[in-house]
Amino acid sequence: MKQPPLHRLGAADAARLLARREIRAVDLVRSCLDRIDEREPEIHAFVHLDADAALEHARRLDTGALHGLLHGLPLGVKDLFDTYDMPSSYGSPIYAGHRAMADAAVVAICREAGAVVLGKTVTTEFATFKPGPTRNPFDLARTPGGSSSGSAAAVADCMLPLALGTQTAASIVRPAAYCGVVGFKPSFGRVPRSGMKLLSESLDTVGCFGRSVEDAALMGAALTGDKDLLVQGMPELRGLRIGLFQGTAWDRVSPETVQLWEELVARMNAEGIVARDVPIPSWFSGLSDLQADVMAVEASMSLSDELRRHPELLSANLMTMLEKGQQTDGRTHSQNMVVASAAKAKAFELFRDHDVLLAPSAAGEAGWAHEGTGDPMYGRSWSLIGLPCLHLPLGRGKHGMPLGFQLIGKAFGDANLLSVGASIQRQFGSL
Amino acid sequence: MKQPPLHRLGAADAARLLARREIRAVDLVRSCLDRIDEREPEIHAFVHLDADAALEHARRLDTGALHGLLHGLPLGVKDLFDTYDMPSSYGSPIYAGHRAMADAAVVAICREAGAVVLGKTVTTEFATFKPGPTRNPFDLARTPGGSSSGSAAAVADCMLPLALGTQTAASIVRPAAYCGVVGFKPSFGRVPRSGMKLLSESLDTVGCFGRSVEDAALMGAALTGDKDLLVQGMPELRGLRIGLFQGTAWDRVSPETVQLWEELVARMNAEGIVARDVPIPSWFSGLSDLQADVMAVEASMSLSDELRRHPELLSANLMTMLEKGQQTDGRTHSQNMVVASAAKAKAFELFRDHDVLLAPSAAGEAGWAHEGTGDPMYGRSWSLIGLPCLHLPLGRGKHGMPLGFQLIGKAFGDANLLSVGASIQRQFGSL
Repeated sequence: MKQPPLHRLGAADAARLLARREIRAVDLVRSCLDRIDEREPEIHAFVHLDADAALEHARRLDTGALHGLLHGLPLGVKDLFDTYDMPSSYGSPIYAGHRAMADAAVVAICREAGAVVLGKTVTTEFATFKPGPTRNPFDLARTPGGSSSGSAAAVADCMLPLALGTQTAASIVRPAAYCGVVGFKPSFGRVPRSGMKLLSESLDTVGCFGRSVEDAALMGAALTGDKDLLVQGMPELRGLRIGLFQGTAWDRVSPETVQLWEELVARMNAEGIVARDVPIPSWFSGLSDLQADVMAVEASMSLSDELRRHPELLSANLMTMLEKGQQTDGRTHSQNMVVASAAKAKAFELFRDHDVLLAPSAAGEAGWAHEGTGDPMYGRSWSLIGLPCLHLPLGRGKHGMPLGFQLIGKAFGDANLLSVGASIQRQFGSL
Repeated sequence: MKQPPLHRLGAADAARLLARREIRAVDLVRSCLDRIDEREPEIHAFVHLDADAALEHARRLDTGALHGLLHGLPLGVKDLFDTYDMPSSYGSPIYAGHRAMADAAVVAICREAGAVVLGKTVTTEFATFKPGPTRNPFDLARTPGGSSSGSAAAVADCMLPLALGTQTAASIVRPAAYCGVVGFKPSFGRVPRSGMKLLSESLDTVGCFGRSVEDAALMGAALTGDKDLLVQGMPELRGLRIGLFQGTAWDRVSPETVQLWEELVARMNAEGIVARDVPIPSWFSGLSDLQADVMAVEASMSLSDELRRHPELLSANLMTMLEKGQQTDGRTHSQNMVVASAAKAKAFELFRDHDVLLAPSAAGEAGWAHEGTGDPMYGRSWSLIGLPCLHLPLGRGKHGMPLGFQLIGKAFGDANLLSVGASIQRQFGSL
């Protein structure tokens, strides 16, 4: 009887088989490593791989007691996180070969839950703009998006079932959209950042990629220590209240995106979902610009040592952003932070009449790799106000590249967001 | 003509003399090093000193162009911050001898502004409870407070004019109170934490110690890049509206603290300050407990690698807190975070009728060193809601130990808090 190869298993399915000892972690890891061997020369998702250590870890898990939620699951770690046993370079030549003394908190949490770290995945420079070598598995001439480029591409290409990412502007949602995977950015403040290279204090958020909402939720539950995030019973679609939030850059989305949106809304209405347009509140309209300003100021502070000791090793685009940040006066930045705080408080109002919001994740299909990692406009506002975001792949564009939308939950409503997302994906995931 | 030794100069005075090249940085550094030589065997403020590097840096500053706000000023760095040229051990044997590859952002910012780092100051274990060896300069049998023990003691004892600290519960305000110096905790999110060992994401705040408000403000301006924080014109006291916020643990303060409070209020009224009691709002009363719960959960996540790989090297008290954190379920923590967010929004109301609040910083004088670093109760709520805090030394208790109070400003109202604080210190600092 011919089985599909193990590397095609989603995380939740694999976790069930591993927990029942019906498959071995070492075989799953080996299958993923074989897939990586085959595909990595074209995809370039990894900056570091440690096959031997991963196989040895998997063997120990196979013979030992069951660990936690991620027992035996291969994991990719965005190279913005420290690892005690692999180099951590943050996408910058400044840190080439750098070895940290400890795992980042989330890496330790995943290992403690039984995950097997296969390697470090490509990040853009300090999670900003300068693309790494990673290509989109759907078309090698196109970008996987950034900054979590390698994590999204590796999961999309079945090199791994799960990978860690981070988002400051749109660095989880955009690569998830371009690569056609699920991307989950939890509520700001829900997942620890210790041992992650910080770029922007009030924005950087740790999240993950999987090929289904159930998979991303499994990892979300591990990362937060909150089993409520696991997708168990999925809510009925009938009566669900979804706010249709086209946002401030709808005029820039592609015709296929508009078409997919309209098709989805019609199908949702047909299923008895109460899907209503949400007008853009006045307090929301300036948030994208505000996010860019806050990010520039905070990045210019976070990267103070690099600016001081290694300015020649920073890319020109990054330097431009850092200089913009340095030129922003303190009073303006303080006012911006107060406005951002007020917006966070106001955001609760969006969820009085809606269980979740639906919003664009990107303008459309992934662009050419040589043109950069794409426009982060569709993530900025949500990153600024810290709401949990869940990208769902829902269709294809005219070039055969993935399209989809994000669901937005209220602050710390991650569990509800994930269970609604699972229902939506089950019903509409093959639009 | 006999001059007082240079190490007694406050930061702002020294900065003026240095900028006019009336004193040399190398002489100021040498004077501080001499003071350290003399006093360190009793105070134990440092875990690492690098006299040669400091003198060399000072010499370069003396012959080169003027740097920034801190040109030539000796600085102590709490050993919770990474330094590329000195060990960074975070008060834990796990990191004994650890060398980071980069400066923490705030260390780089201070060096870029011209500060001369003399060494790393004692922190309690990961900025929690386990005392280091530091003693209170006013009485060697007493605690300097924690967790920024070495920084507060070194500034109090004139080993340094300025030092970096951090506060998660009360780790700037309490040691400032016990050691009789000014402690400034800026608004949460105002100062970058990159390269600091994170304990509690939503609470950890970088701040500083000086011997006057003007000194602390100078460093605050450097740390935030906001020159509005410099104390220039001090506001008139007449008409200033100060809310008297005794808070939720007033029943535990010492009789001397009550007496100093009443004396100060009478003096303030006599100067025409509008000082009115602020009843404790209902949303405020549970915040201290909430802070302790949030801190335990976040610390248990931030220290995941240490818990996983080196549990035997964590102290018993820290382990107790981490286990409490691990046992808190995700739903409770999420609810706590939502309540904390709501309290941050509500806190703006406190400043409708008040320019700043006056609140206790500690129960009273510093206790015996062998009994621990004292009660953080008076800082917890303010740390949770992220307001800027400024401790002012204002008197002495019956054992001759320092007493004082903290002023609280509204979020991102740091500049106003400092200028009001400077006026208050000038008028009442020698109560």
